[in-house]
Amino acid sequence: MKIGVFGSGVVGQTIAGKFADLGHSVTIGTRDVAKTGQGDFAGWHRAHPIIELATFADAARYGEILVNATSGMGSLEALRLAGAANLKGKILMDISNPLDFSKGMPPTLSVCNDSSLAEKIQSEFPDMKVVKTLNTMTAALMVNPSLLPGDHNVFVGGNDEGAKAEVTKILESFGWKLENVIDLGDITSARGLEMYLPLWLRLYGSLQTPMINIKVVR
Amino acid sequence: MKIGVFGSGVVGQTIAGKFADLGHSVTIGTRDVAKTGQGDFAGWHRAHPIIELATFADAARYGEILVNATSGMGSLEALRLAGAANLKGKILMDISNPLDFSKGMPPTLSVCNDSSLAEKIQSEFPDMKVVKTLNTMTAALMVNPSLLPGDHNVFVGGNDEGAKAEVTKILESFGWKLENVIDLGDITSARGLEMYLPLWLRLYGSLQTPMINIKVVR
Repeated sequence: MKIGVFGSGVVGQTIAGKFADLGHSVTIGTRDVAKTGQGDFAGWHRAHPIIELATFADAARYGEILVNATSGMGSLEALRLAGAANLKGKILMDISNPLDFSKGMPPTLSVCNDSSLAEKIQSEFPDMKVVKTLNTMTAALMVNPSLLPGDHNVFVGGNDEGAKAEVTKILESFGWKLENVIDLGDITSARGLEMYLPLWLRLYGSLQTPMINIKVVR
Repeated sequence: MKIGVFGSGVVGQTIAGKFADLGHSVTIGTRDVAKTGQGDFAGWHRAHPIIELATFADAARYGEILVNATSGMGSLEALRLAGAANLKGKILMDISNPLDFSKGMPPTLSVCNDSSLAEKIQSEFPDMKVVKTLNTMTAALMVNPSLLPGDHNVFVGGNDEGAKAEVTKILESFGWKLENVIDLGDITSARGLEMYLPLWLRLYGSLQTPMINIKVVR
C-alpha cells in the first residue's frame, strides 16, 4: 500500500520505517522539506533511502493510508497544510498526543476532558476516517510489541467500523495479536486514550523506562 | 487500628467492611446520620453492626487512619465538615474520583490536567497526609485483588513517604502483593491516576464489566 506519514520526528521515522520494512511504499510529510532534510532526519534518511520526504500536501496526496505522527500541538496545522481535498475519504491513524510543554514540566494536555485532539481532527475533517490508536506507548513498542514480555494491549477508537478493521489489520502486521487489540468504540474514546498520557508519563518517571505498556486484566 | 471512612455508599461500605473483617474498629462518617441510617445503607448496616455510623467530624476524630470514599464532587465539602482540627496529622487514603455527572454521560472530571482532587485536598488541608490510591478500580477489587487472575497493579502517590509506607502495608493486608504496588511519587501523580478514569470508563463500556484492572508490563 501507499502510506503517507505526517511528522518526521522519532515517531514518524519509526512508523514509516516499519511500513517500509513490511513492503509498503512510504512518503513522510513535513512542513519544510529542505529544513527537515538536514539535521537529525538526514542521518536516519540515509539508512532508509527508499522512503520519500515531501510536503504535508504531497504526502497526503500520495498516501492511501495516512498516519498523524506530528507532535499533537501542531497536528491540526499540519493537516490544514495537507489540505482537506487530499485527506478526503482516507483513513488517518492518529497516533499523536496533544502534549503542551510550553508551561513547563510535567506537560499538560492542550485539549482534554470534554474533547480530544482526535475529535477535533475528526470534526475539522469530517470526510476523513480518523482512528485513534498507538498513542499510549513509546514508538519502538508501537511497531514491535514483542519488545515487552507476554500480552499487553493496544486500543482503537473511531467512528468508522471499516477503518477500524483496516487499522486492526495494520496493527496485526506490526506484530499485535488480534486478541490484544481492544476496540473502545467511537472517536470520543480518544479522550480516555489521550488522558492516559499523564499516568504514562508518571510510570515512565517512576519506573525509569519508556518501555512500558498496560495489559487490561479481566 | 481505628479507621474513619468518609462516605456511606458502596465504596465506603466495601472498604469499611474489609477493615472490619481484618479486625480494625471502623466508623463511617456521613453528612446526615439519621438520613443515611435509613434506605440502602440500613440493609448493609444490619449485616455489619460492629461498624459505627457517625458524622464526618466524629469519624475524623475517631480514625487514626482516614479514608475518603465520598463521591469526588462532594469530597472537599465533606472534609470541611470533618474539620481541619480533626484531620490534622492523620493519613487520608484518597480513593475517590472527581467525576461530574451533571453534564450528562460520559462524566467529565471536575478538576484535571493542571491539578487533581487529591492535590486540592492536600492544599486545603496541609497538615493531613494525603495518599492517592485505589481510585483506578471498582470497589470489590480494591479489597480483593484476587478476584482477577494473575498480577495487576495498584498505585500510591503522595508527599509523605511514611504515609505511603503505611498505606502500602494496608494494601498488603487487603491482599495486594508488595511488588504490585507502584509508587508514582508525590501528590501531583494523582493527576495521572484521576485522568485514567475516562479510559477505565470506556474499558468498562467496551468489555461490559467493571471487573477490570491494568497490569503495567515492563
